[in-house]
Amino acid sequence: MPVNLSAPVAAQLLPVAGISLGIAEAGIKRADRKDLLIIKLEEGATVAGVFTTNRFCAAPVIVAKEHLAAGNGIRALLVNTGNANAGTGEQGLAAARTTCTELAKLLGFRPDQVLPYSTGVIMEPLPVEKIVAGLPQAIANLKADNWFDASQAIMTTDIVAKAVSRQVQIGGKTITVTGMSKGSGMIHPNMATMLGYIATDAAIAQPLLQQIVSEAANRSFNCITVDGDTSTNDALMLFATGKSGVSVNESNRAVVQAVITEVATLLAQAIVRDGEGATKFITIQIEGGKDEAECKKIGYAIAHSPLVKTAFFASDPNLGRILAAIGYAGVGDLNVETLKLYLDDVLVAENGGRAASYQEEDGARVMQQSDITIRVVLNRGAVNATLWTCDFSYDYVKINASYRS
Amino acid sequence: MPVNLSAPVAAQLLPVAGISLGIAEAGIKRADRKDLLIIKLEEGATVAGVFTTNRFCAAPVIVAKEHLAAGNGIRALLVNTGNANAGTGEQGLAAARTTCTELAKLLGFRPDQVLPYSTGVIMEPLPVEKIVAGLPQAIANLKADNWFDASQAIMTTDIVAKAVSRQVQIGGKTITVTGMSKGSGMIHPNMATMLGYIATDAAIAQPLLQQIVSEAANRSFNCITVDGDTSTNDALMLFATGKSGVSVNESNRAVVQAVITEVATLLAQAIVRDGEGATKFITIQIEGGKDEAECKKIGYAIAHSPLVKTAFFASDPNLGRILAAIGYAGVGDLNVETLKLYLDDVLVAENGGRAASYQEEDGARVMQQSDITIRVVLNRGAVNATLWTCDFSYDYVKINASYRS
Repeated sequence: MPVNLSAPVAAQLLPVAGISLGIAEAGIKRADRKDLLIIKLEEGATVAGVFTTNRFCAAPVIVAKEHLAAGNGIRALLVNTGNANAGTGEQGLAAARTTCTELAKLLGFRPDQVLPYSTGVIMEPLPVEKIVAGLPQAIANLKADNWFDASQAIMTTDIVAKAVSRQVQIGGKTITVTGMSKGSGMIHPNMATMLGYIATDAAIAQPLLQQIVSEAANRSFNCITVDGDTSTNDALMLFATGKSGVSVNESNRAVVQAVITEVATLLAQAIVRDGEGATKFITIQIEGGKDEAECKKIGYAIAHSPLVKTAFFASDPNLGRILAAIGYAGVGDLNVETLKLYLDDVLVAENGGRAASYQEEDGARVMQQSDITIRVVLNRGAVNATLWTCDFSYDYVKINASYRS
Repeated sequence: MPVNLSAPVAAQLLPVAGISLGIAEAGIKRADRKDLLIIKLEEGATVAGVFTTNRFCAAPVIVAKEHLAAGNGIRALLVNTGNANAGTGEQGLAAARTTCTELAKLLGFRPDQVLPYSTGVIMEPLPVEKIVAGLPQAIANLKADNWFDASQAIMTTDIVAKAVSRQVQIGGKTITVTGMSKGSGMIHPNMATMLGYIATDAAIAQPLLQQIVSEAANRSFNCITVDGDTSTNDALMLFATGKSGVSVNESNRAVVQAVITEVATLLAQAIVRDGEGATKFITIQIEGGKDEAECKKIGYAIAHSPLVKTAFFASDPNLGRILAAIGYAGVGDLNVETLKLYLDDVLVAENGGRAASYQEEDGARVMQQSDITIRVVLNRGAVNATLWTCDFSYDYVKINASYRS
């Protein structure tokens, strides 16, 4: 079950003027399941995004980048679950293009004004006919207050949907930010089998929008990991419709960045809380590093260690496994004598070994919690980094050993 | 259960003249268990080794390196299971030195002629008194044909012991190589919770012995991974007693290197076959790379992917997960259009997607086997690399969630 995470409440998901969402049951992998989503943008909306760095990036990622680069103004996004259209070669590219062309025809847009997204099983041909056949149903369903259903339509192994809204006042006017995400396995920095869509009614010009989404991704989706696998399909997209009448510029940029980063962080953390088989939500804070790279190296070594993750699953304060992970993180000149390891507020290790004050029962008490912070104070510099991950349970194996069946 | 791996047969483990081994039940973690081993070397034997690169290397690793550097000739090794004496700071160093001093007293050696090794739980104080109390029993048990019991005495979560002998003729004389290893979790290149001891009765001067053991480690223990965790305690030691009367020099070095590498490879593969919870033994061959670094990067990305490992556990040819791992391995200019992926002899993917000839039933058939080869042909250069790993099962989680209890 997800760790301290509830499904979103439909009434708390605020529509964003200029955005409508339509859902269909296209039977892509199974019948009777919401598996197709159209996000329609009014003319003049700006769009920016960040995509997976996987060299085997999926066909829809390649096509989405091409269409963004064409610069004709994005008017619609088409998202399917049940099939990732990844590892599908030339055929996969053709399939992604066909779905864009067919949707563009129905809506009266150019094909390169449509961006495609796919998530699901890899290396199987995309069932183009089913997707195309589902488009009229999704178009008929288009409406502004459809974020709740949309967040359900993009789920794969997710147990709960992930969506959140925030509002902020700027110069006496209100801007709204609403976002949703999906993903629970194959989650790693530089994205995940992770799709995220965040919309605001602020007006943000494209170059600035790209900076804002990149910064938000670096502080959120690029700080989470479930299993260290980086997906072929990840994307985080940000839309700005301008309908609120608030223009974002250097004077108010920080406020807008903060609220978008907050929404992105909540959506990213939700993915970890719903991590495949997760029973614990673990915050890893690395403090006092020389630079961000070494903080993240150490943080990810801890976050990816199956031995650390299974110890957390067992609520076993076998904390030497964390020291071992710090030691092999690849920071060559690390002095293990000067670092300190805390579990929440409990000092566990210092001077290269167990802290004199450490009592096993203190560690055991913290390990029982469902939200736990591992804090490593390096005492080497002034840089900090925070990552989020989850534990590793029987259910992770079960889910991933049976995903296709 | 171990994958196609039987326990060694005692009668097939050949004594190495100049080496004797003595075992005791010292009750370090539990009663009635062989947990202490002394390896005694006759005067004149040479010793070389490679150790963990973990920055949190354990106290015995630090002391062993110091004693090797002292250059007074190593006469004995002392190995305990049940406690790793890692993450134990100054106290741990003192404890490791005490055990060496006490054994040296009993045998009439200098303390720096003894090398200490520990494996087991991290960050708990070494029970020095129990080890010292067990020394007389181990000394009384010293004998040359004791490799079988010795290989059992160094086990922790291992299900079967690991030991093997080989002989080779050089200039009409026979040299013998016998080795043993332990380890089944926290296994990763640059060693593992892995201890390996290989002895030969050839005469090999120290600088050459160091080259031979380093080369053997690079082709064996540094090519395996179970879970990507690099232990604090790993060591592979090579002893040469010279009792066969064969001196190793440039003219016969290749033969000796080959047989020692063979023994090391069998011992390393045995660790993977006995990997915690393993049900499949997976050979990963990366061919046609530009250099060894990129071949190993891609190989380890596949070997460490929990999604790949759980698919193998399920015998599910969800082979897109392998493509995804190749894609995120971090080889920036990799062209996914030109590589080929094979499962045993079955061509799975080419031209960036599923091969036209690929039939799911062919993949499914290979996935049923307990020994499987993943072959990635990069078509970028002339360098190959081979790694070995295992799958990821419920039992891995079970073993590591309950290791201390």
